[in-house]
Amino acid sequence: MRKKDVIFFEQPPVITHWAAIGGKKEGEGPLAEGFDQIFDDNSLGEESWEKAEQQLQEQCFSAAVSKAGISASELDLLLGGDLQNQCTATAYAASRVDVPFAGLYNACATMAEGLCIGACLAAGGFVKKEAVITSSHFCAAERQFRTPLNYGAKRAPTAQWTATASGCCILSRQGAGPRIRAVSFGRVRDLDVTDVNNMGAAMAPAAAETILSYFAASAQKPEEFDAIFTGDLGLVGSRLVKELCEKEGLAIPMHQDCGLLLFDREQQDVQAGASGAGCSASVLCAHILPGLQSGKYRRVLFLSTGALMSQISSLQGESIPGVAHLAELSAEGVQ
Amino acid sequence: MRKKDVIFFEQPPVITHWAAIGGKKEGEGPLAEGFDQIFDDNSLGEESWEKAEQQLQEQCFSAAVSKAGISASELDLLLGGDLQNQCTATAYAASRVDVPFAGLYNACATMAEGLCIGACLAAGGFVKKEAVITSSHFCAAERQFRTPLNYGAKRAPTAQWTATASGCCILSRQGAGPRIRAVSFGRVRDLDVTDVNNMGAAMAPAAAETILSYFAASAQKPEEFDAIFTGDLGLVGSRLVKELCEKEGLAIPMHQDCGLLLFDREQQDVQAGASGAGCSASVLCAHILPGLQSGKYRRVLFLSTGALMSQISSLQGESIPGVAHLAELSAEGVQ
Repeated sequence: MRKKDVIFFEQPPVITHWAAIGGKKEGEGPLAEGFDQIFDDNSLGEESWEKAEQQLQEQCFSAAVSKAGISASELDLLLGGDLQNQCTATAYAASRVDVPFAGLYNACATMAEGLCIGACLAAGGFVKKEAVITSSHFCAAERQFRTPLNYGAKRAPTAQWTATASGCCILSRQGAGPRIRAVSFGRVRDLDVTDVNNMGAAMAPAAAETILSYFAASAQKPEEFDAIFTGDLGLVGSRLVKELCEKEGLAIPMHQDCGLLLFDREQQDVQAGASGAGCSASVLCAHILPGLQSGKYRRVLFLSTGALMSQISSLQGESIPGVAHLAELSAEGVQ
Repeated sequence: MRKKDVIFFEQPPVITHWAAIGGKKEGEGPLAEGFDQIFDDNSLGEESWEKAEQQLQEQCFSAAVSKAGISASELDLLLGGDLQNQCTATAYAASRVDVPFAGLYNACATMAEGLCIGACLAAGGFVKKEAVITSSHFCAAERQFRTPLNYGAKRAPTAQWTATASGCCILSRQGAGPRIRAVSFGRVRDLDVTDVNNMGAAMAPAAAETILSYFAASAQKPEEFDAIFTGDLGLVGSRLVKELCEKEGLAIPMHQDCGLLLFDREQQDVQAGASGAGCSASVLCAHILPGLQSGKYRRVLFLSTGALMSQISSLQGESIPGVAHLAELSAEGVQ
């Protein structure tokens, strides 16, 4: 059933299995225990950072499929994306598996975008089992969006640290596992932020709007959720999203941000927190879904937030449009 | 109903309206009459080729929505993508309209990818009306993937000419117009082609596989279709896709390629034909859908074909993975 921007599922599809893979810094952070595998060498033995990210995806996909006890060929579809130009980490990883592939790009909002599309495809009976995967790699992203690491550029205090991580979910129409009760595709909002070192501020308005839009359409109140997770707003954007919601009369004290959960800001020198398409994806798979499985969380909202600029658009002085997609997750299907 | 890789719709969703916008060269080609608007100045009055492509999308979206007699706010979703790094033409265009946005990227296969996802979302009742849009711009693509135009590089005879064009379809669960009877997401195939001036050859195996896979799952024979359109295989890839299908015992004499339809190769100096995410999209909206509407075609298969490399992956010596998605279109819903 559709109400305004929110799609509520009569038969909520299920995230039956998931996996998270991280790099060295992720392995030193507070969520390390939740990862299926940590690579202490961020090159993953590859010759380029781009290929290393492809490896992250291949390993994460393998881990998820293996936990599901299926072979890749049993999947009807792979939905995925990453931050590299032309999403090549995902494309090359997809070329290594024999699964139909639909590439997505909404920057760091891609994991929630994939859950939104994937949940509809599963709920509609168009696919039986499918995988949703995203990734990011700190070194590949720094070179592409800012400056190569070798330049040793000074980082701004509002800058965020791109996660070297991948998360993969296996979705099914039926089965045991956390359920996706509703999804909402967000609208692109551009409030003329042009500072690529302050992407949290660029994405916060889109996140606030998607949250407000969900509660306008739903019979639920924020208090009924154990947590409302945003993707990677970081320190600056997290303050902003709460302010923006409060201005509209919606208090969300249960708000948490994946960008502030992945690393320990006090100890790990990551400025305003984590970011990247692998940030919300890996926090989902290393922390949120395990929390729903274990009973720590009963119901949560999961949002990924994306900043839709490129290096070229930044150099051309363009602003940074933001988008945020939402999935309502529930432990009710957990066995 | 799903059979192998093909999703057959019991209630086929409808393409109720569509629009195509092109640049100067497209306006001099054989399909000029089918375009809703032609811009003789490929800058579209913008300061950069990237912004010009954004304008193409904005104009194309406006034209489609206007022909549908609706306001943009009546759309539940916008699915779209382009070839620019981080798909910025689409993202900035999406930031100008108040419609939920899900970004897609499968290079030149993005239009068919959007039809596949969009058809499922409409058939499942998750959206009432939605738009699918893609674009490409010759000058933006040359600078990004090969060399800036100002360098005056010599073009290889196997090279293809990126279309300066956009196509936009309005999809609905019901209504009058050509119907999408079935869709199929393709698998990524990488046969180690590394020549970015010969992308047709890189994409042909994926296209052949998606066509073969459709006929393996369907009760239809090729003879029942007026045409099987591929996206932008060009001269080299078109020969190859027919050979590959024939090798597997499937003759497809009704094969046509959007890359060979958009321009007149004899007169227009476009080497092996057209390409780009706007190629199959604009040929769909300027030629194929009007043909279904007018009775010229009764049933066709429409495929877009994508080459999933980036400039970085090419410089790093990587091969070019290809993908092809398919939509079966029928005139049965035309009034």
